[in-house]
Amino acid sequence: MPSARTQRRLAAILAADVVGYSSLVERDEEATLFSLRDLRREVIDPLLAQHEGRIVKLMGDGALVEFASVVDAVACALSVQAGVAARQEKVPAEHRIVLRMGINLGDVVVEGEDLLGDGVNIAARLEQLSEPGGVLISGTAFDHLQGKLNVPLTFAGEQHVKNIERPVRTYRVGSPGRMPLHNGRSSP
Amino acid sequence: MPSARTQRRLAAILAADVVGYSSLVERDEEATLFSLRDLRREVIDPLLAQHEGRIVKLMGDGALVEFASVVDAVACALSVQAGVAARQEKVPAEHRIVLRMGINLGDVVVEGEDLLGDGVNIAARLEQLSEPGGVLISGTAFDHLQGKLNVPLTFAGEQHVKNIERPVRTYRVGSPGRMPLHNGRSSP
Repeated sequence: MPSARTQRRLAAILAADVVGYSSLVERDEEATLFSLRDLRREVIDPLLAQHEGRIVKLMGDGALVEFASVVDAVACALSVQAGVAARQEKVPAEHRIVLRMGINLGDVVVEGEDLLGDGVNIAARLEQLSEPGGVLISGTAFDHLQGKLNVPLTFAGEQHVKNIERPVRTYRVGSPGRMPLHNGRSSP
Repeated sequence: MPSARTQRRLAAILAADVVGYSSLVERDEEATLFSLRDLRREVIDPLLAQHEGRIVKLMGDGALVEFASVVDAVACALSVQAGVAARQEKVPAEHRIVLRMGINLGDVVVEGEDLLGDGVNIAARLEQLSEPGGVLISGTAFDHLQGKLNVPLTFAGEQHVKNIERPVRTYRVGSPGRMPLHNGRSSP
């Protein structure tokens, strides 16, 4: 047991970023920044507020959001993906903002407003592995959704994450047929 | 997804009770109540405060305590068991207060000060299955201790819990050789 008391907290951590952000910016920086700002204000921020998500940090085109509940985190992620897709139905595919998201449950170290530890790293890695427009969650997050959220969850294999000894089980949220529209850009 | 917003929170839930409480009370009610009050004031409450455990409710000889972190919950449970045993070294075995504890991690429903749901029921069931003086935790709690708490964890089988479809993995905390003293009373 550590003698100095480390502050810890169970948290559902959502990592999100924009697929192919640098290409979008290269194509039209101003339009991209405007679209992103518009989506945040009109779609993302209100949904985060509704599900009591707290933005831990913004990193370029990405964000780390903390929720007190896994159920809330996943429900929020799905609403954001659906809302972002719906708002851009009339936007040409090559200009669309498409998000990918990863969600993990962790007993994380709290340092002021920041969260640290494996729990955060795994969420970020899940985000990178997620499909454009999709939400990928860890096995431990999955374990706490059973019977609590009426949404299809599909096993998506085990993944090795840097510096994490045991492989991480991954699950795709939502049925592929009902996946929000995306512009076909693949993850880097 | 539920339309009315249910408030949820990830919590480490510790359920504890006194082994063979009714026999103790039958033998000597006043001494039992006095010992219990003394243990709470001198050992248990200070350790709960140190680990930021919140007493959700007291039920006869039992208690339900909420922690923000599984690591804290388990560290606290071990400290309490060791403290309770140490304080009663000179008490005759048949008069000793011996606790058993169960710890689970759940995405539980919050209703005012109370916590509801499977997550709580599983903690209570683990407590009933725990050895006198011991701490039994669920698989999902175990998953969040790896590398975070330097204490032996031994797989103790899968258990079926009433109204829970999937079996619950259980793990015993601490090495049996270092188990706090107990008076040999068995669980009912």
